[in-house]
Amino acid sequence: MAQSNQPNDAVNPTFTAVGTRPIRPDGVDKVTGKARFGNDVRLPGSLHAAVLRATPARARILSIDTSKAAALPGVHAVLTGTDMPQVSGRLVDQPEGAFHNLGFLSRNSMAQGEVFYRGQAVAAVAAGTFQVAKDAIALIDVEYEVLPHVMDGMAAMEPSAPIVQPELSSDSNPFFRAGGYRSEGEPEANTNVANNFAFEIGDVANGFESADLILERDYHTGEAHQGYIEPQSATADWNKDGVLTIYCSTQGQFAIRDGTADILGLPVGKVKVIPTEIGGGFGAKTFPTIEPVAARLSQMTGRPVKLTLDRIEVFEAMGPTSATYIHLKMGVTNDGKVTAAEAKLVYEAGAFPGSPVSPGVQCMLAPYDIANQRLEGFDVLVNKPKTSAYRAPGSPASAFAVESMIDEFCQKLNLDPIEFRLQNAAMEGSRRVTGAVSPRLGFEETLKAARDTEHYGDSVDGPNRARGVAGGFWFNGSGPASALASVLPDGSISLIEGSPDIGGSRASAAIHVAEVLGIPVESVRPSVADTDSIGYTSTTGGSSATFKTGWACYEAAQDVKRQLVDRAATIWGVDSADVEYDSGALSTAKEGGQELTLAGIAARLNSTGGPIVGRATVNPRGVGGAYAFHIADIEVDPETGKVDVLRYTTVQDAGRAIHPGYVEGQMQGGAAQGIGWALHEEYVYDEDGRMNNASFLDYRMPTTLDLPPIETVIVEFPNPGHPFGLRGVGEVSIVPPLAAVANAVSRATDRRIRQVPITPTKLLEALGDDHGS
Amino acid sequence: MAQSNQPNDAVNPTFTAVGTRPIRPDGVDKVTGKARFGNDVRLPGSLHAAVLRATPARARILSIDTSKAAALPGVHAVLTGTDMPQVSGRLVDQPEGAFHNLGFLSRNSMAQGEVFYRGQAVAAVAAGTFQVAKDAIALIDVEYEVLPHVMDGMAAMEPSAPIVQPELSSDSNPFFRAGGYRSEGEPEANTNVANNFAFEIGDVANGFESADLILERDYHTGEAHQGYIEPQSATADWNKDGVLTIYCSTQGQFAIRDGTADILGLPVGKVKVIPTEIGGGFGAKTFPTIEPVAARLSQMTGRPVKLTLDRIEVFEAMGPTSATYIHLKMGVTNDGKVTAAEAKLVYEAGAFPGSPVSPGVQCMLAPYDIANQRLEGFDVLVNKPKTSAYRAPGSPASAFAVESMIDEFCQKLNLDPIEFRLQNAAMEGSRRVTGAVSPRLGFEETLKAARDTEHYGDSVDGPNRARGVAGGFWFNGSGPASALASVLPDGSISLIEGSPDIGGSRASAAIHVAEVLGIPVESVRPSVADTDSIGYTSTTGGSSATFKTGWACYEAAQDVKRQLVDRAATIWGVDSADVEYDSGALSTAKEGGQELTLAGIAARLNSTGGPIVGRATVNPRGVGGAYAFHIADIEVDPETGKVDVLRYTTVQDAGRAIHPGYVEGQMQGGAAQGIGWALHEEYVYDEDGRMNNASFLDYRMPTTLDLPPIETVIVEFPNPGHPFGLRGVGEVSIVPPLAAVANAVSRATDRRIRQVPITPTKLLEALGDDHGS
Repeated sequence: MAQSNQPNDAVNPTFTAVGTRPIRPDGVDKVTGKARFGNDVRLPGSLHAAVLRATPARARILSIDTSKAAALPGVHAVLTGTDMPQVSGRLVDQPEGAFHNLGFLSRNSMAQGEVFYRGQAVAAVAAGTFQVAKDAIALIDVEYEVLPHVMDGMAAMEPSAPIVQPELSSDSNPFFRAGGYRSEGEPEANTNVANNFAFEIGDVANGFESADLILERDYHTGEAHQGYIEPQSATADWNKDGVLTIYCSTQGQFAIRDGTADILGLPVGKVKVIPTEIGGGFGAKTFPTIEPVAARLSQMTGRPVKLTLDRIEVFEAMGPTSATYIHLKMGVTNDGKVTAAEAKLVYEAGAFPGSPVSPGVQCMLAPYDIANQRLEGFDVLVNKPKTSAYRAPGSPASAFAVESMIDEFCQKLNLDPIEFRLQNAAMEGSRRVTGAVSPRLGFEETLKAARDTEHYGDSVDGPNRARGVAGGFWFNGSGPASALASVLPDGSISLIEGSPDIGGSRASAAIHVAEVLGIPVESVRPSVADTDSIGYTSTTGGSSATFKTGWACYEAAQDVKRQLVDRAATIWGVDSADVEYDSGALSTAKEGGQELTLAGIAARLNSTGGPIVGRATVNPRGVGGAYAFHIADIEVDPETGKVDVLRYTTVQDAGRAIHPGYVEGQMQGGAAQGIGWALHEEYVYDEDGRMNNASFLDYRMPTTLDLPPIETVIVEFPNPGHPFGLRGVGEVSIVPPLAAVANAVSRATDRRIRQVPITPTKLLEALGDDHGS
Repeated sequence: MAQSNQPNDAVNPTFTAVGTRPIRPDGVDKVTGKARFGNDVRLPGSLHAAVLRATPARARILSIDTSKAAALPGVHAVLTGTDMPQVSGRLVDQPEGAFHNLGFLSRNSMAQGEVFYRGQAVAAVAAGTFQVAKDAIALIDVEYEVLPHVMDGMAAMEPSAPIVQPELSSDSNPFFRAGGYRSEGEPEANTNVANNFAFEIGDVANGFESADLILERDYHTGEAHQGYIEPQSATADWNKDGVLTIYCSTQGQFAIRDGTADILGLPVGKVKVIPTEIGGGFGAKTFPTIEPVAARLSQMTGRPVKLTLDRIEVFEAMGPTSATYIHLKMGVTNDGKVTAAEAKLVYEAGAFPGSPVSPGVQCMLAPYDIANQRLEGFDVLVNKPKTSAYRAPGSPASAFAVESMIDEFCQKLNLDPIEFRLQNAAMEGSRRVTGAVSPRLGFEETLKAARDTEHYGDSVDGPNRARGVAGGFWFNGSGPASALASVLPDGSISLIEGSPDIGGSRASAAIHVAEVLGIPVESVRPSVADTDSIGYTSTTGGSSATFKTGWACYEAAQDVKRQLVDRAATIWGVDSADVEYDSGALSTAKEGGQELTLAGIAARLNSTGGPIVGRATVNPRGVGGAYAFHIADIEVDPETGKVDVLRYTTVQDAGRAIHPGYVEGQMQGGAAQGIGWALHEEYVYDEDGRMNNASFLDYRMPTTLDLPPIETVIVEFPNPGHPFGLRGVGEVSIVPPLAAVANAVSRATDRRIRQVPITPTKLLEALGDDHGS
């Protein structure tokens, strides 16, 4: 159900392709099993690789004896850290001002002298078969000097904590500001705090003074994994001419190209990355992990090498998101106006810097207009896997804190949660904690749409049942993108673009072209190209793909249209200005009136001047932030502590839903992942730093049996920064569920639980406690 | 040894990339066996196909019983003509004004009711393995009503000859003008003459009256095969979404796409063709043959289907070139000026129209300025495989006649063969038999360069030894072409183009870009793209690839350069007009002087406005014809009739040798093929129309043991119609050898042999005859 609150309608009163639901171009291949995912790549003469992984959570490697492995028949090469280039800690620009630290990336892909978390790669084998490779790694003897480790972000900040990365303890060390996001603070000696920064606006002390009610609470979110179905898989082919080709499951073939080239010391022009289909990424497949290892094994053996991880390796070594600790203090007036907010956010980075604490801080209060704020972030090292991005990275945890506390305010002040948020909603011109000024966003429209849903109007009846609501924000990303649109002789379009298709971006790319040219979406056949075949296109992440690549497709189609008009003008001997293009047909009133269909002119291109290829490279600004609001009805079983989600509605501002079906899919998928995080998902470690639940049986993601049908309401408050008004939609849907579910549990049980996941154990403990909050 | 006769040198005094000999980009893959040719394509779940071929040379198919084949375990589908779309005889435009007749193409790929030559496909099987497919076709029972056949072009023109294509005997039949080239004549009823046309200029009778010496002779050339190493191979994957993808060894992925779509009745937008590497084509891999069959089997089975031919099938069904009969009359003055020429050229088309008689006629006398000419061409059907193009199609046979007769004139009038040709050489403004006016071409320069060679200066000593010389012309082709040049972050260029690389065109494409940008050729990495990923690019044929795709690459690089200049201007805040680009570096004298290397700006593209992709689509005119002149020293063994080539020099106008090594390779390859045609190669049929020598053991191509090192002299008389002055070089080198070798044999034996190949049998017969001509 799309809302009609569309200020841009006057400009684009009717769309023919935008807003329709064509079958996805990759759909048949994906349902018939034909789509080629990472492990489906089979190059002639390929070898298979396996990785030996560290057993201690922190150790010095005293020796690695690979002789028995190397002697095993069928083994072609054994690799350890000394076989990898010794990469310095140089920072490498990534899109959107983020960095990766090459030294850390390199050691995360293969340990060099030390191990920093259990599961870190310490050796790899290439063999004729995968089984031989597996057998060979079991023959490698590693002698460790085990060192003390620390597994908890709060404990890691204690003065007596073991130091995770001694390198970070030097003031002059360039690693220090090497997190995934810009540092604003200064280093401390001998610390596990890789980054510390604060943003402040207004006068916080003053703000609290004008509050009638102040709450101060601690919140914790567990370490959740992205849970993509497809494990990492890369096949590297280091050719004898020095050109390295990598096939891999990635969200960003260009990021893999650039990062792998840097780690291996190769010119970027010698590396080609061919993205396969991707069985989920959710932010985790954005930087090199296994690719440099597969590449080096290929170079050593002169053969293509395939390296595919198993599920245990994915859990133990392919970064989950951060566990977080957030201390939040907010003050409100009795009528529900927030006067001040102050928070400290501690995000675990894992063993190398780079938690998403910065976006966590930036998103935390962005939906609200709060004059006085101070938010401080800590990126803290622990001896766990290096974290990687997970859908709206950083925002679910900080929203959990804020949206939980708002719910407490509403309970205490007896205010409607939606009215409370409407009263405090950021408007155009509101200042954010970073000092940035908010553009006009769809907060208000989304909240009103939520208020108007049938779900919100219905009551929740029955014992142990209650409703929780929560909102969430993600600022969405952009970046460079490229597209090519080639006119085929039947008037259809071959569209080449560079965004790996996680959630239907081929379809949305094709819709952009179809809309501009006024042709059926089915007449546009999109392909995702390798790094040689399309201009630079930044990673599919940050909810950027449909925005930036859609924009490139829009421009490429405009380029096609211009050339078609010029060609028709040439054919008719009139000025281009006298040619009209409308809905796939060209006409002129001159020369007695002439008409040509797109198919008609397409068949004549070769004889009238040559082929037509539309081209665009863009780096668009104007991406608009997205807001979501979720409504969760739950039932608690007081005997077992189990929480059932009875009904769930997501309301989200899509700006403009290019393909509503995939927008709804994103809304539902994010909600499902957020519910899992709220109720089930968490890394459980033993005291040696071993993950105890590294399988999909033990790491409990929700299944269809755990969830009701998730209702969706798309709000369309067009983004003025995009030709069709779209906003990114992929990420924000994971932000509200943690608080929405927790708020519902709180209202059902009268016990405020400020830690997710709210497992049965945790809930039973709370229910056994007399002190409701 | 390049000549320095270069009028364009003033314009382009120095090249940095053009004229160098970089290692070919595909070289390592080809020498290490990594390059993927047609049969190397292995799609998951593929089936293998085999084809049952007709045993009679002409028959009606009374019945085909496929039941036993279909019942064989492992067989997935059996296909006959009734399973193929019944395609009408619609003509389809091909590049350069040529046509293909869909009905003929379709029936050439799978017989429908009748067979017209032995070897024509009558059924096909798709099975789990190739061996099962082969076994299955042996179980198919075909009942034929055998009809009379005719195997010789002259016999086929007799009134009593069996009619090869009854369809052609109707005046109103659109098939009639359906040869590979435009028809100028009118149909006759009940004929095997598919096309008959004449060109005439001047007053031929008058011209002969002013001659002092008139010769009138008959010439014959045998039916030679292109002899490519790689048999045809296609893998078709008709997806359940209706998109057909074909991987095949072809010279023109777009021609295969368009032709296959037409034959199968599919929109072109639903067909994607991915060209593999190609193990030779020489003109024969330019239109669909096996592709529609593989595609239909894939549709029937729902699986990818691979169809790879064996050598016998290649010989029997994949068109050789025409056998020809040429009657020539020429008149000269005593001092060697040609006054008139008249000829009838009969070219066998095979079982479907389309011999290269038209280019044979057009090239025949193009090197000469002859005021009075009448040339008549006949495209004649016989019950042999449909002919296909073979390197400079049509020209070797007609040049054989003309260059042989000129040699006779020189012998009779005691004139130097080079001086004779210089005296008659066409100059700028000379009229050709078609009425076209000759541009300035390098005939004169090539002849003078030949005269100046050490080889021509040396004498041929010894018994039974002699020298022959001959010239030849090919007008070269062009067509639409597209290129994309993407700037990579290290300043190197990824170049995407559409010309399958037969003879080094990747290298010449890269050289064009390197020259424009002033960067090393090694910094440009070229790829040949599929039909979805690059704009339309016409077939690699007609010696067009380096000309047209080179031009597209030149323009794409200029586009890159313009964008780099604009970007530097943006970065420096100056006008683009104030930015200089020179040799991979940008600078401005404004703002106190600024400089950026290409690599420097390439690394900053994403943060300064986005990626840079150069794009060009062209359809260039101005392709210049090419002239070659060959010198052959031979020795005849009078006991065996064997002819040994002792020394061989090719002199050829390349306009500008973009990569001299590949120009020389083309010159040597063409000469070797021409020598094979002159001495060894010929189809030998039995009376039932069966080819008796359908193997490389029996069909005798020259090996390295048969040939001396072939010396090459590149003449560079720049083509004013190309930015760097190049002409196509691939084809003309096969034109002179037939006459050059025959002229040498004639001078060594005093026996003029006017039929090639000059086999030992033929030569012994001639030597046993007292009458030297």
